[in-house]
Amino acid sequence: MTRPSTDRAPESRDGGVNTGTRLDTVRIRAARAVIAPVFLDTPLFRCEALESELECTVSIKLETANPVRSFKARGTELVASQIADRGERAVVCASAGNLGQALAWSGRRRGLDVTVVASRHATATKLDRIRALGARLELVDGDHELARERATAIARHKGIRLVEDSLDVETCEGAATIGLELVEALPSFDVVLIALGGGALATGVGHVVKSCAPGAEVICVQPQGAPAMTRSWHQRRVVITGPTDTIADGVAGRRPILAVLDDLLLVADDAVLVKETSIVAGMRMLLHHAGLVVEPSAALGIAAILEDRDRFAGRHVVTIVCGSNVDLDAYSSWVGTAAVDRS
Amino acid sequence: MTRPSTDRAPESRDGGVNTGTRLDTVRIRAARAVIAPVFLDTPLFRCEALESELECTVSIKLETANPVRSFKARGTELVASQIADRGERAVVCASAGNLGQALAWSGRRRGLDVTVVASRHATATKLDRIRALGARLELVDGDHELARERATAIARHKGIRLVEDSLDVETCEGAATIGLELVEALPSFDVVLIALGGGALATGVGHVVKSCAPGAEVICVQPQGAPAMTRSWHQRRVVITGPTDTIADGVAGRRPILAVLDDLLLVADDAVLVKETSIVAGMRMLLHHAGLVVEPSAALGIAAILEDRDRFAGRHVVTIVCGSNVDLDAYSSWVGTAAVDRS
Repeated sequence: MTRPSTDRAPESRDGGVNTGTRLDTVRIRAARAVIAPVFLDTPLFRCEALESELECTVSIKLETANPVRSFKARGTELVASQIADRGERAVVCASAGNLGQALAWSGRRRGLDVTVVASRHATATKLDRIRALGARLELVDGDHELARERATAIARHKGIRLVEDSLDVETCEGAATIGLELVEALPSFDVVLIALGGGALATGVGHVVKSCAPGAEVICVQPQGAPAMTRSWHQRRVVITGPTDTIADGVAGRRPILAVLDDLLLVADDAVLVKETSIVAGMRMLLHHAGLVVEPSAALGIAAILEDRDRFAGRHVVTIVCGSNVDLDAYSSWVGTAAVDRS
Repeated sequence: MTRPSTDRAPESRDGGVNTGTRLDTVRIRAARAVIAPVFLDTPLFRCEALESELECTVSIKLETANPVRSFKARGTELVASQIADRGERAVVCASAGNLGQALAWSGRRRGLDVTVVASRHATATKLDRIRALGARLELVDGDHELARERATAIARHKGIRLVEDSLDVETCEGAATIGLELVEALPSFDVVLIALGGGALATGVGHVVKSCAPGAEVICVQPQGAPAMTRSWHQRRVVITGPTDTIADGVAGRRPILAVLDDLLLVADDAVLVKETSIVAGMRMLLHHAGLVVEPSAALGIAAILEDRDRFAGRHVVTIVCGSNVDLDAYSSWVGTAAVDRS
C-alpha cells in the first residue's frame, strides 16, 4: 500500500510534479552529461534470494561497483566540474570518508588541489583511499562535526571552495541521478529505502521519486545511535544530538542543516530509526543472499524491513546499497566469520 | 606491448575484422535487443586499490550484479527467446550451476519447462538457486561430463531442445555482448583475461575483441587442475583429461568440444594455467581491495597476473569477474576468516 503525496500537485517545467525543494529536475537530468559515466546507470536488479526471508519483493540499486565504492562521486563530479569551469584550483571538504574519497577522485581528474578533513576515528580504509588518490588529508581529534568546523576554517583562511555535503545542492542533485535511474528503469516500485545521514541522498532521490513517480513511498532510514536528522524530520525543526553511537559511520552526523531538513520535509514520507543489531543482520543477509560486502550504512534499508515486516509485506521495495568501504576486520567482527554463522 | 593479430585481415560486413569463427558480430549486436537489460551494460571500472600489488592498470568487468550472479544469462536469454519463438515448451541442459541457474531464470520468464542436470557434487548454493527458480533439477552421481551425457539422453528421450554450453553458438554470442561493452567503453585496453572452461566466454569475448579491437591481447586462463581446453589449444587438437582437481567448479570440464576449440584457436592469443594457490590469492585480493566476494572462476584473471607479473607490468589489463555463486563456508575456508588474514 503506497501513500501518494497528493498534497503536492503543481507540475514543474519538466513535466514532473514540483516538489518545492531546492533541487531542480531539469538540472538533475543535465547532470548526467557531466558525471563520469562510470558512476551512472548502476546495476538495479531484483534479488529473489533475499525475498523469502524479507517477505517482500526486493530490488537492489548497487552503488558500490565503481572506482570509489560509493554513490558520492555523482555529487563530487558536479562540484569539481563547476570549480574547474570557474578556473578555481582548490577545494576542501569535511568527510566521514566517502565524500572525501569521491572528491579526491573527481578533483584529481580535473587537476584540483583537494583537502579532506576527517575525524581521526574515521574508517581507516576510507582514509587510506583518500591519501592514495592524492588528496591532502587532515585529521582532527574529534567527531565529524569538528571536522566540518575545521574544513570551514580552512576554506575561509585559504579563500577556497568549501564543499558542504547535503547543503551544496550539487551533492543532492548528483545523488538525485540515482532517482532518475530508478523511475526510468523500474516504474512500478512501491517503496524506496534510503540511508539518511546529512540528507543529500535522501533529498536527492526523494525529490526525483516525488517528482516523477509520486505514488512510491520514500522512507529514510537512520541508526538509533545517530538519530539527529530523523528526530528533526519528525519534530519539523533542527534537533542537535549528543555523541553518536553506531557502526554506520557514513551517516553519523549530529547537527542537521536547516535547508536540507526543509527539503527532506517536502519529499520524505517517513524517517525511521533502526537498531545496530538490525544493521548487522542486514549486512549479513546481503553477504549470504546477495554476495555483497557492504558498509553498515548500505544495510540500513534491509534493517528497516527486518524491523517492520508487516509494513513491507508483499510490496516491491528498492533499497540503495550506497557504499562498500569497510574495514574488513571490523566487518568480520560484526558479521561473524563471513560464512560459518549462517544466522 | 600488445601482439596485433595481423594475420587476420579481411573485414566482415559490419566493418570489424572477420575472425573466421562461427560467431557473427552483426548477430551479437542484435542480441542486445533480446537479452533482458538487467544483464547488459554491467559495471566496468578501474580498480586502483588492486594496482599497486599487481603492478599494472586493472579494470574490472563485473558480471555478478544481476539476478543470477553470473554472465551466463546473456546466453540463456538468446537460447530461451529462440525456443519460445519457435513455439517449443521445454529445454534441458547440463550445468555446473551457473548455466542452469541462468536457463532457469530465462526459461521461467518465457513459460518454458526447464530441466537442469548437474553433478551431485556441484556447489550447493548453485543447486539451491536452480530449484528456487522453478527448474526441475536432476543430479547424477558423477562429474560434469556425466551430467552432459544424461542431459543429452533426456533431450533425445523427450524430444526437447538440449542447450549445450559453448557448442550452441547463442551461448557464445550472448557472452560476446560483454566484448562489445568492453571495446565500446574502453577502447584502449592492452589485455583481456578471460576464464576458460567450455569456451563460450572466451570465444565470445575473444571474437569481438579480435574483430573490433584487434590490437588487444586475448588471454584465456584455466586452473592447472582442469587443463583440458588449454592443453587442447596449445596442441591444436582436442585433448581429453582425467578427473579435474580444482575449486573453480565453473570451469572444470574434461572434454573440450572441437568446434569451440577451432573458434578459440582463431581468437585467443594465449591460454595459461594457474595454480590453486593463485586462485585463492586472487579471490582474497578481490575481497580485500575491491570488496568483491567472487567464485573461484572469477579470480582466474587476477591469478594469471600474480603468476606472471612481468608479462603484464605497466599494461592496462581487463579482467572479467564472471560469477559470484559460491558457498560461503567453502569461501571462508579458502580465503581465511574473510578479513583477519590480510595476506
